[in-house]
Amino acid sequence: MTSQDLHSSSIIVDALQSSDFNREILLDAQQGGVSAINASSVLWENFRGGMDYVTMWREKLAENADIAMLIRTTDDIRRAKAEGKVGIIMGWQNTSPIEDRLDNFALFKDLGVNIMQLTYNTQNFFGAGYLETRDSGLTRFGHEAVDAMDEAGILIDLSHVGIQTSLDTIEYSKKPVAITHCLPSALYDVPRNKPDEVFQACAAKGGVIGTSLFAPGLAAGNDATVAHVIDAMEHTLDLVGEDHVAIGTDFNHNRARPGPWLLWANKDKGTGSTLADFGSAKISKPEGIRHNREFGNLTEEMHNRGWSKERIVKILGGNWMRLFDQTW
Amino acid sequence: MTSQDLHSSSIIVDALQSSDFNREILLDAQQGGVSAINASSVLWENFRGGMDYVTMWREKLAENADIAMLIRTTDDIRRAKAEGKVGIIMGWQNTSPIEDRLDNFALFKDLGVNIMQLTYNTQNFFGAGYLETRDSGLTRFGHEAVDAMDEAGILIDLSHVGIQTSLDTIEYSKKPVAITHCLPSALYDVPRNKPDEVFQACAAKGGVIGTSLFAPGLAAGNDATVAHVIDAMEHTLDLVGEDHVAIGTDFNHNRARPGPWLLWANKDKGTGSTLADFGSAKISKPEGIRHNREFGNLTEEMHNRGWSKERIVKILGGNWMRLFDQTW
Repeated sequence: MTSQDLHSSSIIVDALQSSDFNREILLDAQQGGVSAINASSVLWENFRGGMDYVTMWREKLAENADIAMLIRTTDDIRRAKAEGKVGIIMGWQNTSPIEDRLDNFALFKDLGVNIMQLTYNTQNFFGAGYLETRDSGLTRFGHEAVDAMDEAGILIDLSHVGIQTSLDTIEYSKKPVAITHCLPSALYDVPRNKPDEVFQACAAKGGVIGTSLFAPGLAAGNDATVAHVIDAMEHTLDLVGEDHVAIGTDFNHNRARPGPWLLWANKDKGTGSTLADFGSAKISKPEGIRHNREFGNLTEEMHNRGWSKERIVKILGGNWMRLFDQTW
Repeated sequence: MTSQDLHSSSIIVDALQSSDFNREILLDAQQGGVSAINASSVLWENFRGGMDYVTMWREKLAENADIAMLIRTTDDIRRAKAEGKVGIIMGWQNTSPIEDRLDNFALFKDLGVNIMQLTYNTQNFFGAGYLETRDSGLTRFGHEAVDAMDEAGILIDLSHVGIQTSLDTIEYSKKPVAITHCLPSALYDVPRNKPDEVFQACAAKGGVIGTSLFAPGLAAGNDATVAHVIDAMEHTLDLVGEDHVAIGTDFNHNRARPGPWLLWANKDKGTGSTLADFGSAKISKPEGIRHNREFGNLTEEMHNRGWSKERIVKILGGNWMRLFDQTW
C-alpha cells in the first residue's frame, strides 16, 4: 500500500488548531484529507465569549456546509470522512467561559463543545497552567470540574496545564484524558513541553498524547522539518506505545504574527502581563507540514520509516477516535 | 477615666461585618459607638454582583443619611465620629467581582470600595483560600492584582486566605496589609485560624490583625464570653505588640441561620460543594458581645484588665485608622 493510499483511506484527526478558520483553510484541510479538527481558539474568553464562539461556528458551518460539518460524535467523524468533508470539533483551550458555574459544562456540551483544556498557561479556579511558579494541583473546585466534564462527556485536555495539576487530573478523572498538542521535554527541555512522567501517567489511564508542530518545542526550532516531528513522535511511541500517540498540529492560520489576537493570547487573561514572546516572535511550523494541505507528508515520513499500517492508522486518527468514543 | 468615657471618646472601627444591614442594625451600631464598619458581604459575586453591592449601599445610605455615611477616607471616619453617625466602609471578602480584568480594581475603588480580601476560602485567579489542600501561593496574576490594589489604594485583607498565599502577599505588597477578622491557631488549632507566623509577618510589615468573635475559632466555642475574646487579643498583643491588633467582629446580623445566604456563602463559588457547616450549624457570638450595641463591653473588659488608655484607643480603632491612612 502506498503512503498516498494509506493517507487517503485513513481517518485523520488533528486534535488542535487555533486557526481563524475561513473557507480557504477549510479547503486546505479538505485537500490534506483531514476528517476532523479540534478548532480550539478559546483562550481567555468569559461566558459570553464562549457563547460567541459557539455562534461563530454555527455561522461558519452554515456558510461552508458543502465542505465542513459539526462533529458531535465519532459517527459524525466517520460521516465527514465518507462525505469528504472537514469535521469541526468545537473545543476550547481554557475553561474560562465556565466562569464560576459548574452547570455551564453540561450547557456548553449540549451546544456541541466536546473538548476543554482545564486551564491555559496560568492559574484558574480549577488548577495551574505550566507558567505558574507554584502548582496548586487540581483545586477543590477543580475536582468538581473534572466530575462535571466526565459526566457531561467533555474530553479534558492538559496540554498547557502545570505538571502537578496534570498528574492530579489524570489520577482523579474517571475517564482517560488528552494531551492534545505537546512535545517531550526529554528531547528539548523547555517549560511548554512535558516530561515523560506525565505522558506515561496519561497513557497508563488510557489517554492519548498529540505530538505538536510547535517549533519552539523542538530543538531544531524554526529549522525543524517533518523528520523532527516524527522523531518526537518516536520518542513518545517508545515511551507509551502506539495506542497513545497521535497528532495535534497547533496550526494557527490566519492569525497575524505579530497581531492583535496573538498578542492578546500571550497576555495573562488577555489583558495582564505578557507571558511569553510567542505572540511576536517569528515562529514557523516545520518545513513540509506548514499547512493543512501538507498533512500527507506526515504519513509519508511514517511510511518511509517502515511503520506498520496499523500503527500509522492509529496515529493519524484511530487513537483519537477510540478516546473520543470513551469520553464523549 | 471610666471605661464608658474612654469608649465614647474613642474612634471605634469594626473591620468586618457581613450583616445584611438595615436601619435597626445601623441604630444598634450608633448606640454601640461604632464610627466605621467594613461592610464586607461580597463573597462570590461576579462583576455585576460587585456593582449591585455598590448600588445597594448607595440606596441604603441615601435612606439612612441621618445616621450613616459612606467612608472614603479616614477624615470621613473622623467626621462620622464627630456627627455621631455610623460610617460604612465598602469592602469585599473576595476579589471575585474583578473577574479577569485588573483594571476593575481602580474602577471599584473610584466607586468607593476600599478593602478587598484576596480570595474567600478557596482558589481564585490570585491565590488560595485556607480550605485548599495545596496552596498555590500568590499566583502570577495575583502579583499583578496586589500591584493594582496597592496603586489604587485598596487595603488587602487576608483573613480567609491560605497560609502560603498570605505570606507571599505580605512579602510582595508595597503596603502593609490587614487580617481583618481572625483568631490565633496557637490558642485553638482549627483551619480558619492563623498561625503566629502569619500574624508576625503581617505586623512586621506594618499590618494589623483584627481579632474576630467567630465562636468556632475559640476553644470555648458557643460558650465563649467577652473574656475569651480579650484572651485571644492578649495572645496576639504579646506576639506582635499593641500597634498591630484591633477588632473585626464578623457580625452577620439579619442573616437567617440556616438560611439561603449562609448556605450560599458556604458553597464554593456559591453553587459548588459545601465547604463548611458554618451555614447551618448553630453558632452564637460570645456572650456580652452579640450585637453592635454591646461594643462597650469589649472596652470595659480591656479597661478591667488594666490596659493603658493608649493601648485601648489603638485597639478600638487607632490602629485601623493608621493602616487606612497608609493604604487608601
